Amino acid sequence: MSDIKYSFGLWTVGWAGRDPFGHATRPDLDPADSIRKLAELGAWGFTFHDNDVIPFDADAATRDAAIASVKKAAEETGLVCEMVTTDTFMHPIFKAGAFTSNSREIRRFGLRKVLTNVDLAAEMGATTFVMWGGREGTEYDNSKDLITAHARYAEGIDTVAAYIKSQGYDLKIGLEPKPNEPRGDIFLPTIGHAIALIDTLDNGDIVGLNPEVGHEQMAGLNYTHGIALALYAGKLFHIDLNGQHGPRYDQDLVFGHGDLLSAFFTVDLLENGAPNGGPRYEGPRHFDYKTSRTEGVAGVWESAKANMETYDLLAVKAKAYREDPEVQAAFETAGIFESAQSTLAEGETIEAFLASEETYDVAALSDRHEGLVNLHQLALKHLIG
Amino acid sequence: MSDIKYSFGLWTVGWAGRDPFGHATRPDLDPADSIRKLAELGAWGFTFHDNDVIPFDADAATRDAAIASVKKAAEETGLVCEMVTTDTFMHPIFKAGAFTSNSREIRRFGLRKVLTNVDLAAEMGATTFVMWGGREGTEYDNSKDLITAHARYAEGIDTVAAYIKSQGYDLKIGLEPKPNEPRGDIFLPTIGHAIALIDTLDNGDIVGLNPEVGHEQMAGLNYTHGIALALYAGKLFHIDLNGQHGPRYDQDLVFGHGDLLSAFFTVDLLENGAPNGGPRYEGPRHFDYKTSRTEGVAGVWESAKANMETYDLLAVKAKAYREDPEVQAAFETAGIFESAQSTLAEGETIEAFLASEETYDVAALSDRHEGLVNLHQLALKHLIG
Amino acid sequence: MSDIKYSFGLWTVGWAGRDPFGHATRPDLDPADSIRKLAELGAWGFTFHDNDVIPFDADAATRDAAIASVKKAAEETGLVCEMVTTDTFMHPIFKAGAFTSNSREIRRFGLRKVLTNVDLAAEMGATTFVMWGGREGTEYDNSKDLITAHARYAEGIDTVAAYIKSQGYDLKIGLEPKPNEPRGDIFLPTIGHAIALIDTLDNGDIVGLNPEVGHEQMAGLNYTHGIALALYAGKLFHIDLNGQHGPRYDQDLVFGHGDLLSAFFTVDLLENGAPNGGPRYEGPRHFDYKTSRTEGVAGVWESAKANMETYDLLAVKAKAYREDPEVQAAFETAGIFESAQSTLAEGETIEAFLASEETYDVAALSDRHEGLVNLHQLALKHLIG
Amino acid sequence: MSDIKYSFGLWTVGWAGRDPFGHATRPDLDPADSIRKLAELGAWGFTFHDNDVIPFDADAATRDAAIASVKKAAEETGLVCEMVTTDTFMHPIFKAGAFTSNSREIRRFGLRKVLTNVDLAAEMGATTFVMWGGREGTEYDNSKDLITAHARYAEGIDTVAAYIKSQGYDLKIGLEPKPNEPRGDIFLPTIGHAIALIDTLDNGDIVGLNPEVGHEQMAGLNYTHGIALALYAGKLFHIDLNGQHGPRYDQDLVFGHGDLLSAFFTVDLLENGAPNGGPRYEGPRHFDYKTSRTEGVAGVWESAKANMETYDLLAVKAKAYREDPEVQAAFETAGIFESAQSTLAEGETIEAFLASEETYDVAALSDRHEGLVNLHQLALKHLIG
Repeated sequence: MSDIKYSFGLWTVGWAGRDPFGHATRPDLDPADSIRKLAELGAWGFTFHDNDVIPFDADAATRDAAIASVKKAAEETGLVCEMVTTDTFMHPIFKAGAFTSNSREIRRFGLRKVLTNVDLAAEMGATTFVMWGGREGTEYDNSKDLITAHARYAEGIDTVAAYIKSQGYDLKIGLEPKPNEPRGDIFLPTIGHAIALIDTLDNGDIVGLNPEVGHEQMAGLNYTHGIALALYAGKLFHIDLNGQHGPRYDQDLVFGHGDLLSAFFTVDLLENGAPNGGPRYEGPRHFDYKTSRTEGVAGVWESAKANMETYDLLAVKAKAYREDPEVQAAFETAGIFESAQSTLAEGETIEAFLASEETYDVAALSDRHEGLVNLHQLALKHLIG
Repeated sequence: MSDIKYSFGLWTVGWAGRDPFGHATRPDLDPADSIRKLAELGAWGFTFHDNDVIPFDADAATRDAAIASVKKAAEETGLVCEMVTTDTFMHPIFKAGAFTSNSREIRRFGLRKVLTNVDLAAEMGATTFVMWGGREGTEYDNSKDLITAHARYAEGIDTVAAYIKSQGYDLKIGLEPKPNEPRGDIFLPTIGHAIALIDTLDNGDIVGLNPEVGHEQMAGLNYTHGIALALYAGKLFHIDLNGQHGPRYDQDLVFGHGDLLSAFFTVDLLENGAPNGGPRYEGPRHFDYKTSRTEGVAGVWESAKANMETYDLLAVKAKAYREDPEVQAAFETAGIFESAQSTLAEGETIEAFLASEETYDVAALSDRHEGLVNLHQLALKHLIG
Repeated sequence: MSDIKYSFGLWTVGWAGRDPFGHATRPDLDPADSIRKLAELGAWGFTFHDNDVIPFDADAATRDAAIASVKKAAEETGLVCEMVTTDTFMHPIFKAGAFTSNSREIRRFGLRKVLTNVDLAAEMGATTFVMWGGREGTEYDNSKDLITAHARYAEGIDTVAAYIKSQGYDLKIGLEPKPNEPRGDIFLPTIGHAIALIDTLDNGDIVGLNPEVGHEQMAGLNYTHGIALALYAGKLFHIDLNGQHGPRYDQDLVFGHGDLLSAFFTVDLLENGAPNGGPRYEGPRHFDYKTSRTEGVAGVWESAKANMETYDLLAVKAKAYREDPEVQAAFETAGIFESAQSTLAEGETIEAFLASEETYDVAALSDRHEGLVNLHQLALKHLIG
Repeated sequence: MSDIKYSFGLWTVGWAGRDPFGHATRPDLDPADSIRKLAELGAWGFTFHDNDVIPFDADAATRDAAIASVKKAAEETGLVCEMVTTDTFMHPIFKAGAFTSNSREIRRFGLRKVLTNVDLAAEMGATTFVMWGGREGTEYDNSKDLITAHARYAEGIDTVAAYIKSQGYDLKIGLEPKPNEPRGDIFLPTIGHAIALIDTLDNGDIVGLNPEVGHEQMAGLNYTHGIALALYAGKLFHIDLNGQHGPRYDQDLVFGHGDLLSAFFTVDLLENGAPNGGPRYEGPRHFDYKTSRTEGVAGVWESAKANMETYDLLAVKAKAYREDPEVQAAFETAGIFESAQSTLAEGETIEAFLASEETYDVAALSDRHEGLVNLHQLALKHLIG
């Protein structure tokens, strides 16, 4: 493995294979064992939901023992617990939502569970606190007051952010958008919607995104475009890498095992930044995949390894692609560098612009050939050539 | 027709039926004739792109005559020109984008075209200026610097907004999101992405959205959820009503001819507001549909009428639905009104909340039956019963 | 309820609410109790998978008791067991397929389970034997030899059909297509693919389809078009009615709670046949839905009732629509009846046709206005007017 | 270029860039010039719609000159005209269908156009006659009698097939499925539906498929699975290779520029056949793509070349993948070769099978690890390693 900082959710390798039409095909794994195994494979960090480690109704002793076991494995292996998240979706109490439940009691129960987990995240040394509101949504448009539900969602997130600040924790929140499944329509379905809500918060400065490849692709959206907007808006706090085949159920395939060309450009943006510079993603390369249900336990580790191996391969190829003079020349032809020039010159007023007698050679500009297919084919040849 | 303020794009009834695999099936209509015919049918307003009325390369005399003809029809009929928009997509010069073109010259050409059109919008008395960046996108992720492209897009919009302010025009900008077609991936693919970009602008206060039913549904997203977020964020400035059958090419069907239940809930939100109140949409009910290419000219007016007729029907039914005591009781059961209560009580601090010994009956809360299918069936029976 | 023959899968009302991200929210129901409750609600029949009633590893006594309990409830209530199907997807042994497993031993195990269940179907008096090969597929294109897998699938189905014939059972097989979920890509993804495979079988005469509304819509396909082809091909043996919102996870909503206009036209075709006559569907109106996980047990029965109620409403409206003289006139204008005339006249040879000096008024034919939007709007007004 | 037989539709390189929201960006190309240029680039063959070469309303002299020009270019370059197809979609007369038009006169006009073109195909020495019924469909389910429409479609195809036989032409028909666009729902939306209709024909033996990568992917279906079924059914007569990003408008990207991993497995199946042998596709590798509208004329030839280059690269990699002993061992582990063994032994009767005391180690079979992720990763490493 390269020295890229790879991390894995304990629920990813730990997934036993239960799906809507099938029972588990693999045994439950001990979280501490998973940490050790991930360390062996070359991972740098791990992440978890509270209930990946601590049963929902655990007493204090069980809870403490569970946490201690995970901490011990982390210490032994040197694996970093970089992110913690809260499960507000598995238990029936959250069946109609946590922060957006119509029931105020359930909202308060959910909020308490999340806040408790913020403490745990800080205790574990995590720097990111992910919130995926998988049950915050509806099957029917009249199940919730759709405006009020957004207000409740904002209130909940803002409260968590305020708490983080009040405790002085070195934690940032990463919201995880998803369009649907397990709800018919989930609130904050895309990267854009999540930023839009964050921008209404009082404590939005420490709230950003944890966008997942497959979640955006389930809406037919382009993941690389999405994280570019998040970077531009200063909100790319964490990422979930995996694979998906477009609009259908959430597949959580190995990274690169879905849309490979898209994965290449994602890695290129993450590793090399945008051609004209700009904000960079500095966090871990975090995988949120599931080992296919067909696999035995051996397959769990084969697939975990495949994520890192594929990212490594793509990173090497993306580097060569960017450094290739032919590619740089094609960037020039395409106008990639010209795009960095602002449309109005520095200091040019709108009035001056409008008053200017500037003329345009419409025919020539219409015939402009940027060589975009050629440039794309250069990338493809770097990828598979 | 009811007294609801319906408006139509001149390009909607004026669409001659050219599609990617077929020539025009209907003659071009004279814009002034369309205005007169829409008035006869009971419409309240109309809207247009500059090039629906003025040829791209018109000289001043042609331009003036075209505008005069439209103004005359508007005056004669009393139809309001409520919105004007700019075509930055049909001409080859915009083939790779206008505000996000890699070419600075094309960006300046596009900006000038848009600013000129802002003047026209003001001259026409329009209060909304829509911007659909149909060519702002890519087919290949390396065709543009994805971060810089967002910066250029933001620059362009901000410049237009600044100009509106500088001129003291009573105009607001409505951005129109769309996920793809005619580009492989369009920037600002959804309601959320557009708000996210607006929030980065200096003059974002006069920039909001013009979301289209079908555009959101092309990404499999729920339109009513989307406009609820836009309302919550104070950004629902205008709407485009039509019909679509999920992820596929942009169908622009008559409103209600796609997902009828979704249309019902959209009308319910627009006409009746959210159950607990909150921001309302006060603008026109604007249709952005296309008459099916199979239709003769008679079908143009039949389909224009069908939009208003369907909306009228849905509005009547939505009103009866909301006023039905059984529905109100089902709202109560579902907790719709309870959702208006904030999660933390007024003045309740997080510390106090965490310190409280509040307990929860998890089993009872897990068994909570909100009667959501029943409530939805009540709506369906109001719709078709 | 009307006298329409409604039937329900025991797994539909019996679904406890386990989904990929959530535990059960409702208790398991006793199948016999469900039969009694469905009878109360006005259903005519019921259906089941073996393992809805009999545990996977039941001994003979448990099995006999389970079947006896169901039979007793059926006798008491008069509910007809019209269809039986086999679960070849829940147990881990089938994780990589049953009839298309690479493992011959698993294929033989699966075949034995299915054949045993054919006997049960006959014993229960069912006339349809449904086969949904939910695990017959892949996540990766190299997981199976894709041609050989189709051969194995065909072999399995043909063997079951041969067995039915050899036993003289009054049973027909209904294959149930689905594009994906729980597998990345399922073999026989649509109505068309299933007919194509049936046509390669030796015993295909007793093999037809059980198409599900939501499964076709998950591929963005039109269900009513699909069952029209199945009727034309003589293969519509059974149906699964429910609701879905296009390409996403399998929602199994109440019939009509997805695409309502599509449901109207489906009911119109089922109840009234095609305008020019032709093959009719004569089987039960079978619901394969799931009660939303948010609902308590009360919601199970509310939603079961909603299926029948919605179908009833649509049937009444479809009848009035068809009998409306204005609709019939619009059919005439559209050329619906003219379509029944063959293109070549009876006895007209191709040679004679080509030799004829027949001319065509291309301009007039190009201007032909069939009034299709108007006709559709008539349907919509019957539905919601 | 390799010696693989690549062919191109003249409409592919000839596409001038008109889309639903944009005018042409490139000049029309002379078909004969395109043939010469394709020959230079290393293509083996070409194909065309009648109206790619002959204007819709050409007189006999114009028609003859057009054909002569194409023939001359073919002779000079040695390029083979391997397929001819008919345009029954561009002209307004076909706006509501050709073979399924409600108007008998239009159907007769369409049939005559197609039959005339069969003669042309034979004259050109083509061996495949493709029929894409792009207008055979509806936007509204009541626009056509859906059962009768299938009957008319079948009649039309059967008549064409009968004519081919009667003339003794060495031609086979390839139907091209597509789910939607330009119609809301097109009849024969997938590979499966097309085979299902073919199986009802009298002359179906010479009717097969011309499946297009993007068309299947527009329905979220797996192209490689689809052509495997077509091969199994003996119906893969021709192919259309291109690229697409799932359910959205028809993108017609360069082959490999959509889902690259899927393209790899398609090439593997086409070049290497299925692992256990079976029917092979022997026809040309035909590209049906469109040069992106952003490109100048130089981009037309760059993109044409990119199709062949990408296929060549994938073919080389697929060969190495198949020959790799590690891959063959992984095939063995996965049971790929075991799948070739029939489920029942040769001569084994169902009765004997059921009577046997064969037992199964359910636990062991449930734990079976086929190493499918590992096998897929091996393919990915061959592709990009």
